[in-house]
Parts: sequence; C-alpha cells; structure tokens
Amino acid sequence: MAAHTESVQRLIGQLKKLPGIGEKTAERLAFHLMKTSKEEAMELAFSIRDVKKNIRHCSVCFNLAEEDLCPVCRNKRRDTGLICVVEYPRDLAAIEETGEYSGVYHVLLGTLSPVDDVHPEDIKIKELIERAGKKDVKEVIVFTNATAEGDFTAHYIAGQLEQCSVKVTRMARGIPAGSEIEFVNKGVIADALAGRALFAMESQNG
Amino acid sequence: MAAHTESVQRLIGQLKKLPGIGEKTAERLAFHLMKTSKEEAMELAFSIRDVKKNIRHCSVCFNLAEEDLCPVCRNKRRDTGLICVVEYPRDLAAIEETGEYSGVYHVLLGTLSPVDDVHPEDIKIKELIERAGKKDVKEVIVFTNATAEGDFTAHYIAGQLEQCSVKVTRMARGIPAGSEIEFVNKGVIADALAGRALFAMESQNG
Repeated sequence: MAAHTESVQRLIGQLKKLPGIGEKTAERLAFHLMKTSKEEAMELAFSIRDVKKNIRHCSVCFNLAEEDLCPVCRNKRRDTGLICVVEYPRDLAAIEETGEYSGVYHVLLGTLSPVDDVHPEDIKIKELIERAGKKDVKEVIVFTNATAEGDFTAHYIAGQLEQCSVKVTRMARGIPAGSEIEFVNKGVIADALAGRALFAMESQNG
Repeated sequence: MAAHTESVQRLIGQLKKLPGIGEKTAERLAFHLMKTSKEEAMELAFSIRDVKKNIRHCSVCFNLAEEDLCPVCRNKRRDTGLICVVEYPRDLAAIEETGEYSGVYHVLLGTLSPVDDVHPEDIKIKELIERAGKKDVKEVIVFTNATAEGDFTAHYIAGQLEQCSVKVTRMARGIPAGSEIEFVNKGVIADALAGRALFAMESQNG
C-alpha cells in the first residue's frame, strides 16, 4: 500500500518473519514501535543485537551461553552424573522452569530426519557419546520430542549408547496432567496404556 | 530462571513490552531470533533503528512520512478538496487498504480526553481548522473511532468547523458487513436504527 513509507514497510516485512506473526499483527507491532519513545524502541533493537553478539553454545552441553559454560554447567550443585538429552535450548528452558531437575543437559541442536537430510553427524550425538562414556556418568535421560523425528532420534541414541556402561532412560509418555480422557487423542491413550505402572500408594516414580 | 542468560532475559523483557506479546510468546520469539542467522536477526534490529531514524510526520496532514510530505500528500491525483480526519496513522492505513478513498487525510495524533488530560491544544485540531478554512476544501469527513473519546472529539471538531464554509460529514455507523444481527451488541443496533436510510434499488450511498 502506498500508505506505508518504505521504512515502515520494511519493518513490517521483518516482523512478519517472526513465528506466529501475521500481516495484521506485524502492522500493529510496527505502529507501536513508531509511537513509542526512541529509547524504548532502540532498547529492543539493541537487545536483538546483543543476543546475536553475546550468545554462543556451551562448550560442554551446547545450551545457550554467554561465557564458555552455560548457567547450568557453571552451577556446581548440579549432578553431572545425570544427563538429560533435549533437542533445543528452548526444551531445556521448559524443563528448568519446572524446578524438578537437578542433573545437567546435552542439547542436540536438532533431530535426526532422513527426509530433511539431517544425519547423526549434523547434530551433537558424537559429543553425547563421548560425555556418556565418562566414569562419573550414571544415567542418560532421553527427552526428545514425542514426534516421529524425536522418537527416531531417541532410538538411534539409545543404540549408540549401548557401548557405554550407562543407564539409558526415556521420559514417561501418557495422559498430560490436567486433561480429560475424552478429549485426548488415540496416540496419547495408546502411550498411556503401554506405559501403565503398578498402582502403589507409596512409590511415586520410584 | 537460571536457564536464560542475561542477554536472553533482557531480549525477552523487551519483547514482552510489545502489545499482545506475553511471557511465552516473548520466549518463543527470542528463541527464534537466536536460532535464525545473524543477518536475518540484524535485519530486524536495523529496521527498528531505521524507522526511528527516518520516520517523521507529514508537514501537511501529520501522517507518517520519510520526507516533508507523506505518500498520500505527495500523490498529485488525490483530491485535496476532501479531507478525512482520523486519530492515528494506523487508521489512515486501514482506510487506504480499502482503496475506496481518493481524498487526503488529517491525522489528529490523538483524541480529546478530559479524563486523561488531553485537550484541543494537545492534538492537531488548530492545524485542521487552518486547512479546512482554505478555499479549495469542500468537505471534511470526521472518521474518529466509534468510542466515547472518538465521539467527543468528533463533536468538538464539528463545532469548531462551523466557522469555515465547509461541509462536515461523519462516517456511517451501523451493522458491520458480514455480521449476524443476533450477535451484534445493543449500541451497534441502536446506531443502525438511528442511521437508517431509504431503501432505494439504485442509489448506493448516494
């Protein structure tokens, strides 16, 4: 539209590239940025710049980091004998938010996907095998997505880890907390049946 | 959470200030920006900077502009005898998108609101009266929001324009196209009744 100037059109175009942001939302965000103070808008621009400048991957677990080690690996109270394998840093963040996990992580930075031409050497599997082979590592929990690619990756990893003397576990799959069975899909119910556990009043997850 | 580094936390905080962006969406956008290429992310940062650097208000109508005049005022084919008064540039953009309007605009950059201490001298009303007083101006269409502030502003403007020999009109209010009467609220129905027009097979909006 001729009503938008060139800079505005360009900003809208850039905002539209963000996930979940359509034409209308991009327009609304652009108008907000134009109305807001220069300081406020530039704070956002600088934050984006700083993230791209400062953020790298942890040299141990490949989580996002601003130094050589990420905040989890720097934390001396985390149990380095327990490694949770996730696909992306955002999965790690979701697990951290529960506050229920005290081990460390290994971020694959991808999933195996023959269709998309993603092979074992394209993600951080070699590095995982190396870490898991160390003496103090007792358990590797595979926490990849419950999708076709996630499952495929999990099975590949489990196979590779057979060479190490380490316990390999997988996240529980079943009915999500808070949901009603009526509205849950077939695959979820099948998982919940297959993974059923003895009903024991005392033992909560062993 | 300790799982986010400082730069990431700051970016999430800045994204959350955008309208309609909550914690979860901000996190998702931040992770997207971290995963995307540096060039792509910096394109967004530069777009924000450029908009704040380049954008000013049109010296005639106060629409957003990158030069002295906005794209509408620069367009020689627009009818300068017809001025549509809107609150903000985004309203102008919405009208432009219809492609149904060939006149020019006057952007108030606000609405009168005694509650929020916004008075006539705080928005571009004086400038409107000046423009409307010029010989070639035939009609001023008041297109402020159909809200209490918008109505109040519209009435104030109509009163002020009495001194000029110009026709002052207001946008039609009624049932929005495509909606079912059953789901429309009382105020909308009241407007539609009050503004009812003769049913004539030929005359479409006169």
